[in-house]
Amino acid sequence: MEADNSLQSILYKRGSLQLLDQRKLPLETIYLEIRDAADGWSAIRDMVVRGAPAIAIAAALSLAVEVSNLEAFNGTTDDAAFFLNKKLEYLVSSRPTAVNLSDAATKLKEVISMAATAASEAPSIFQAYIEAAEIMLMDDVASNKAIGSYGVSFLRHQLKSSKKLSILTHCNTGSLATAGYGTALGVIRAVHSEGLLERAYCTETRPFNQGSRLTAFELVHDNIPATLIADSAAAALMKDGRVDAVIVGADRVAANGDTANKIGTYSLSLCAMNHHIPFYVAAPLTSIDLSLYSGKEIVIEERSPKELTHSRGGLGEQVAASGISVWNPAFDVTPANLISGIITEKGVITKISSDAFDIKDFIEKAAK
Amino acid sequence: MEADNSLQSILYKRGSLQLLDQRKLPLETIYLEIRDAADGWSAIRDMVVRGAPAIAIAAALSLAVEVSNLEAFNGTTDDAAFFLNKKLEYLVSSRPTAVNLSDAATKLKEVISMAATAASEAPSIFQAYIEAAEIMLMDDVASNKAIGSYGVSFLRHQLKSSKKLSILTHCNTGSLATAGYGTALGVIRAVHSEGLLERAYCTETRPFNQGSRLTAFELVHDNIPATLIADSAAAALMKDGRVDAVIVGADRVAANGDTANKIGTYSLSLCAMNHHIPFYVAAPLTSIDLSLYSGKEIVIEERSPKELTHSRGGLGEQVAASGISVWNPAFDVTPANLISGIITEKGVITKISSDAFDIKDFIEKAAK
Repeated sequence: MEADNSLQSILYKRGSLQLLDQRKLPLETIYLEIRDAADGWSAIRDMVVRGAPAIAIAAALSLAVEVSNLEAFNGTTDDAAFFLNKKLEYLVSSRPTAVNLSDAATKLKEVISMAATAASEAPSIFQAYIEAAEIMLMDDVASNKAIGSYGVSFLRHQLKSSKKLSILTHCNTGSLATAGYGTALGVIRAVHSEGLLERAYCTETRPFNQGSRLTAFELVHDNIPATLIADSAAAALMKDGRVDAVIVGADRVAANGDTANKIGTYSLSLCAMNHHIPFYVAAPLTSIDLSLYSGKEIVIEERSPKELTHSRGGLGEQVAASGISVWNPAFDVTPANLISGIITEKGVITKISSDAFDIKDFIEKAAK
Repeated sequence: MEADNSLQSILYKRGSLQLLDQRKLPLETIYLEIRDAADGWSAIRDMVVRGAPAIAIAAALSLAVEVSNLEAFNGTTDDAAFFLNKKLEYLVSSRPTAVNLSDAATKLKEVISMAATAASEAPSIFQAYIEAAEIMLMDDVASNKAIGSYGVSFLRHQLKSSKKLSILTHCNTGSLATAGYGTALGVIRAVHSEGLLERAYCTETRPFNQGSRLTAFELVHDNIPATLIADSAAAALMKDGRVDAVIVGADRVAANGDTANKIGTYSLSLCAMNHHIPFYVAAPLTSIDLSLYSGKEIVIEERSPKELTHSRGGLGEQVAASGISVWNPAFDVTPANLISGIITEKGVITKISSDAFDIKDFIEKAAK
């Protein structure tokens, strides 16, 4: 993997883990030392780290650091497996609804179980666990870099323009949401590193301001030419001819390509369509849930009214009138017909007709 | 004019003026006593009162109160006219770029000039001025109530639905922006008072939060069933089938119907069109500028980056990364083809073809 200067939110080497404290961003850049699973649990619970892939990997690595630094372990292989499994369950309890976190724990438990069957000594179990957690970290970054790489060559091919591209993104899908580099923001990083980026536009991303707080921070950190806009200004920006493509991440992609993502994504997709601007989703294949036939099956979580009635995403002072009702959906669903392509780590899923993807076919071919 | 219980931001009777301090909203409802033009100047400069029509009328009335309470004036009619004209010029200097304010001053100066020609004593000039300022107040409220009245009968006729209507609005166009009742929010008030309103939805209206701070406050005050949403959630709300009509105000309407209004209006109009939801502009005829052929001639003001980088519309703490560029247009232009009708105090201007209004013709007929 080539070196890059993109923002690192997870600093790991064997036996040592530091997490960028996202609560302090963008005003202070402070890394917190994570020494064990208890530190990892607190960091997740207290929002030091956020973003589904980032949480899962931070949890896994916090336990890897703990066992790396174990001075002695008096026990059998079963005792070691029991120790690790208990710690994983504890880590999952830091954010019980985070699917990536529980998925990661399930995969790591399988590794532990296999190692416990094969090995005769406790240290081998620990070694297997540490290696599996490290692979998770490397795989996520590698997957994001592959998304970036496929994204940039696809864009270069699709938008046969001699001028550089201006790309609009939404929410935070960068190093602060993943193990590193990012998905949609990873594509923007890749376009920039190829010298093809005119400018990145990031939305504020109300009500939690992931765009102004986090994406803007990453773009400034990486010296990528970037402009922050209010979510509601995106249509006017497009009308001015200043957006060549929109690229967003995904929380979940259904089998037909319908995509759940941060509230406001659907609005951007409608505005993009009306201005004939291509609209791409960038996400690893793990975001695709073939068990969901369409976006209609995705249940949209509603979040606290305080995110709108109070400043700083609900943590600050009251700004809205007392007694006002609030509708604060976390996500919306963008229908497949408004999506121009889905950029994955195995290539770009394009349409087979004007409004349909064959994602299952793509995944089967990619697995071969 | 019938009594109503809608929020009053300008409390006036001859010799007495109180302005609702909008800087304290929505947390505190405090009226400030305005005794003279100097108080009026400060109230405008310090943002006690905002909204173009409200500023103009508050300025005019502050001077009316001053001259009502003058104990003695030793001077000729020319001295009285000079006194009033100087005070008006001083009031205009409180917000030199506010067109309504300078227009109102120009009209009042004409009244003063005519009175000075006709009258032989200074008190007659003052009396003429006071009456003209009071007529401005009454005219603005009456005009808004006429907009509400035309709006509700038009909606009743157009949306031949047996169910009540849910209406989405943007920014603040209510009692806090006008002399009272409001334009787009006036139509919502009228629909509610006729028992036809299911629910009003108001956007937060980033970056200055006029929706969450002011419109939500007015809706709660008037006991109108209302829900606050993030600007970016409007499309998802429409997709859910929860919006029957969108009604917004206007900063300026060009001769062809293109409408400049608060940033985010254009995005809402695109989303409404894609969901086959009618999109109305509610504005007095004074907002129409026939000298502008189309919206292309409207120059869009850009506002301070701090409105996005800092909380409370730029007044609060830093939220965005240091060094990020910002594009913060105050307004955008919604093209006439996305507007279903323009609700005025003389009736609703409808289209003569799928994408054109004949506003000049409407105004000429209305003037007869």
